[in-house]
Amino acid sequence: MKLALVQLNYHIGNFEENKKKITDQIKQAKERGVDLVVFSELAICGYPPLDLLNRQEFVEASVEAIEGIAEYCNGIAAVIGGPSLNPHSQGKQLYNSAWFLADGKVKEVIHKTLLPNYDIFDEYRYFQPNEDFKVINFKGARIAITICEDLWDDQPVEADFARNKLYTLSPMQKLAALKPDFMINIAASPFSYHQENVRKQVVCNKAAEYHLPVAYVNQVGANTELIFDGGSMMVNSEGNITHKLPAFEEAFLDLEVNRVNVVSSGQLSETDPIKLIHDGLILGIKDYFRKSGLKKAVLGLSGGIDSAVTAALAVEALGAENVHGLLLPSQYSTGHSITDAQQLARNLGIKTYTIAIKDIYRSIEETLKPVFEDRKPDVTEENIQARIRGLLLMAYSNKFGHILLNTSNKSEAAVGYGTLYGDMNGGLSVLGDVYKTDVFKLARYLNKDREVIPENTIIKPPSAELRPDQKDSDSLPDYEILDKVLFRYIELNRSPKSIIDEGFPEEVVRKTVRLVNFNEYKRFQTPPILRVSGKAFGVGRRMPLVARYERL
Amino acid sequence: MKLALVQLNYHIGNFEENKKKITDQIKQAKERGVDLVVFSELAICGYPPLDLLNRQEFVEASVEAIEGIAEYCNGIAAVIGGPSLNPHSQGKQLYNSAWFLADGKVKEVIHKTLLPNYDIFDEYRYFQPNEDFKVINFKGARIAITICEDLWDDQPVEADFARNKLYTLSPMQKLAALKPDFMINIAASPFSYHQENVRKQVVCNKAAEYHLPVAYVNQVGANTELIFDGGSMMVNSEGNITHKLPAFEEAFLDLEVNRVNVVSSGQLSETDPIKLIHDGLILGIKDYFRKSGLKKAVLGLSGGIDSAVTAALAVEALGAENVHGLLLPSQYSTGHSITDAQQLARNLGIKTYTIAIKDIYRSIEETLKPVFEDRKPDVTEENIQARIRGLLLMAYSNKFGHILLNTSNKSEAAVGYGTLYGDMNGGLSVLGDVYKTDVFKLARYLNKDREVIPENTIIKPPSAELRPDQKDSDSLPDYEILDKVLFRYIELNRSPKSIIDEGFPEEVVRKTVRLVNFNEYKRFQTPPILRVSGKAFGVGRRMPLVARYERL
Repeated sequence: MKLALVQLNYHIGNFEENKKKITDQIKQAKERGVDLVVFSELAICGYPPLDLLNRQEFVEASVEAIEGIAEYCNGIAAVIGGPSLNPHSQGKQLYNSAWFLADGKVKEVIHKTLLPNYDIFDEYRYFQPNEDFKVINFKGARIAITICEDLWDDQPVEADFARNKLYTLSPMQKLAALKPDFMINIAASPFSYHQENVRKQVVCNKAAEYHLPVAYVNQVGANTELIFDGGSMMVNSEGNITHKLPAFEEAFLDLEVNRVNVVSSGQLSETDPIKLIHDGLILGIKDYFRKSGLKKAVLGLSGGIDSAVTAALAVEALGAENVHGLLLPSQYSTGHSITDAQQLARNLGIKTYTIAIKDIYRSIEETLKPVFEDRKPDVTEENIQARIRGLLLMAYSNKFGHILLNTSNKSEAAVGYGTLYGDMNGGLSVLGDVYKTDVFKLARYLNKDREVIPENTIIKPPSAELRPDQKDSDSLPDYEILDKVLFRYIELNRSPKSIIDEGFPEEVVRKTVRLVNFNEYKRFQTPPILRVSGKAFGVGRRMPLVARYERL
Repeated sequence: MKLALVQLNYHIGNFEENKKKITDQIKQAKERGVDLVVFSELAICGYPPLDLLNRQEFVEASVEAIEGIAEYCNGIAAVIGGPSLNPHSQGKQLYNSAWFLADGKVKEVIHKTLLPNYDIFDEYRYFQPNEDFKVINFKGARIAITICEDLWDDQPVEADFARNKLYTLSPMQKLAALKPDFMINIAASPFSYHQENVRKQVVCNKAAEYHLPVAYVNQVGANTELIFDGGSMMVNSEGNITHKLPAFEEAFLDLEVNRVNVVSSGQLSETDPIKLIHDGLILGIKDYFRKSGLKKAVLGLSGGIDSAVTAALAVEALGAENVHGLLLPSQYSTGHSITDAQQLARNLGIKTYTIAIKDIYRSIEETLKPVFEDRKPDVTEENIQARIRGLLLMAYSNKFGHILLNTSNKSEAAVGYGTLYGDMNGGLSVLGDVYKTDVFKLARYLNKDREVIPENTIIKPPSAELRPDQKDSDSLPDYEILDKVLFRYIELNRSPKSIIDEGFPEEVVRKTVRLVNFNEYKRFQTPPILRVSGKAFGVGRRMPLVARYERL
């Protein structure tokens, strides 16, 4: 049987566009003599649709669009992900389904069994789990269809004190008992820099365990903060990858499927995580703008590494002509802030404006004098500077229609080293899931062919320049140590005690953890953060703002 | 058997305080000759602990604290909510449990069966559902214990096109088969202005259906945006409420329980929803400050109704001495803005400062002139004014340690009539779940005994005063209509078509829905909003930012 794996970039709720993309592929595949073309999970509406699934008109539009696509499935069959209504009188009203279309109509609807409900996933919010296992007979083959998480029954629970398997049921085991010839898995598995290898291991292990070829089709493209990398693949019954689609782009692949093909031996990818992060962020920026109908970005250029890397990524994603930079020096800005930012702008070929903030600052100082009386300067004055910059950037954004890109990195976001309504402003946070030490690596990566990020920006000590001679290291631990502690506390969910037991200085660990916990309120109000790690700030990490964290 | 129902206000993660509150109650109940004292769901750690449940040290501290409490349970027994570890090798690693303590130790741990995972609830993210039903034998009585949602198996699904019951299982039916003498339900059921009646109906109907008295203990107190109103009660086997604890305060009640008591006949509460909203918001503000270790608030007083009502509520919650108001007039502020705000401040007895923003505005205008050149004024200049105010309020907050209260109402938040990083600033949104028409009712309610909100503030037409002679009604539909359309779209989840079919003008409905959808990005960055309705903006409503909403 000739199969086509098709990984496309869907736009949530854009049924017309999604339907057209799908039917175009069906028509072309039919011309190539394909028997069955496979699209990804919830393809018809885009993943994740979130609470749009609670809206009748959204679900109806999804079902209608799929029924419309069925008309194109004559002489060819298709598997397409989409919600379906639960016909039973009890339970959640939707299933997360794979629609099997053939002979011009809907032939079968298969439902997802394992509904992920951790990190960024909330599927149990919407869907009833499947309890009924069946295979599809098509052109003499018995085909088992599963949806994403259905292969992940061996998944350990998320927390560090995990001792359990998350699920009590294995859909693949149930289906294997029905003796299928091969399995299709349609997925919407989001990117993180280690996810590709985990995913390959899961799919290959399952294929080998059940001696069953698996055709795996994942979504590609970014939807708000979630980036999907595609990487669809065919795995043979030995558990070897025989075909692989590229990462981060739309693609399709035709292949012959049968029980025994061994074309090549699969292996884990050696891709540099920094390259993956780079490629993921580019796609994330591109899709945020394109899918919102936007073109142009603006950001503040401080001469520092975060804004420089953000600008370079934005230029790659949107084009130099669509990225403007504002240089917003204060009385504390050093000479190199300006020269480094200008050098960056020249390297990138972007338009900049330089707007000194000192007159505005003075006017604010003057205005507040009767209220502040003779109180000594403190963090208030630092925040005022950051907020003037935020205000000017937003004014530029409002006047010219450029979306403000936030330049905070994950280390800063973690410890609250940033000003709400100041440098934390923006429509999208590009680096908010990238630790400072990785921002430096990204800078080196961007410079691999030529100098994009000025060398001085990379080598000078990081500083917020909000008071004379300020350095990040005055108030924060060295980033090399800080980032390791943060990774253990946030990504690995380890307790402060166990991090100290690993050999990190107790004082640093306690202070870091205290700062992370104390600053939940700031992160509550940050822009969406492009997710590239296994645990990003945002929807995947939900912490109480008002709580006592002392025991933690 | 003598039962004590105890509704307390727990602090998330504050194990010491929570444990002390619980043991104090146990000691006192013992002196009163109580046999069994009942506390609410997840009492030991506070509800909702969110992703703190993924942290080993948090769960360990919960379990330790409960084991410590068991030592106080000699000659008295207690039921206390807390997480427990799932001992099985598969499934989520926690249960949401009721710990039964007696004879100085943990005698039994009963788990929650129905895990709510809609609106603000994410329980399936953390907990394995119970599958094993049993009753507890204590002092000759057979006691069935359920946890909150376990009584709500008849719950319809949330969406407007609901045709199903959400759950496929009835824990009460399972337990009734074991012939218990009475049932205990421990709950953490958040407040909304119609929730009390819904809750009474559910508990009374269930008691009557199974001819089983039900002792219902709910948590009281607010945790960030969620307000819990308590309202614990005893319902007899006829389905009548025999005892009721007060709303919005800590309380306990002793009672004799047996199969047949009919003390009084239960009835639905006639409480004015505006009074409920008022009481809920007061508790919400109080607990946000107290549990965060804060005392003082600041807010901008525009002379308008939203800031006036917010100020009055803050004064009631925190005391006049802890609330400061800033009057921040611009060149577009009318005379009555100042006089109305000053009258309000006099009525409330709060300290104010008046800081004219025009010099700062001029300095910003001057600074931006070379960039803006001769572009015409537009919304940019309006936003600059709002952002100057936001900046000054935050400067005051930073300098004096007053937390900024946000004054946006739900109608504005819905249609995006507000400036990000300007008037949308704040640590807590007090009125963000109260429609404008209800803000007026709240003002009248606050004025029931004497003038608190100046009459002119109530009767003048609402205006943002960001350009000459501006009125809200220039750009928004009349609030009387707008709020009705919003309620149908947001709370009732109705489709635009069905709202139009009800008779609302098509143009108004389409425009309103478009504005709601378009402004998801603004609401993404708003402060936590005290929840008083069945569908508040925030964690209970999760919409994609980047999506096409045209079909909706």
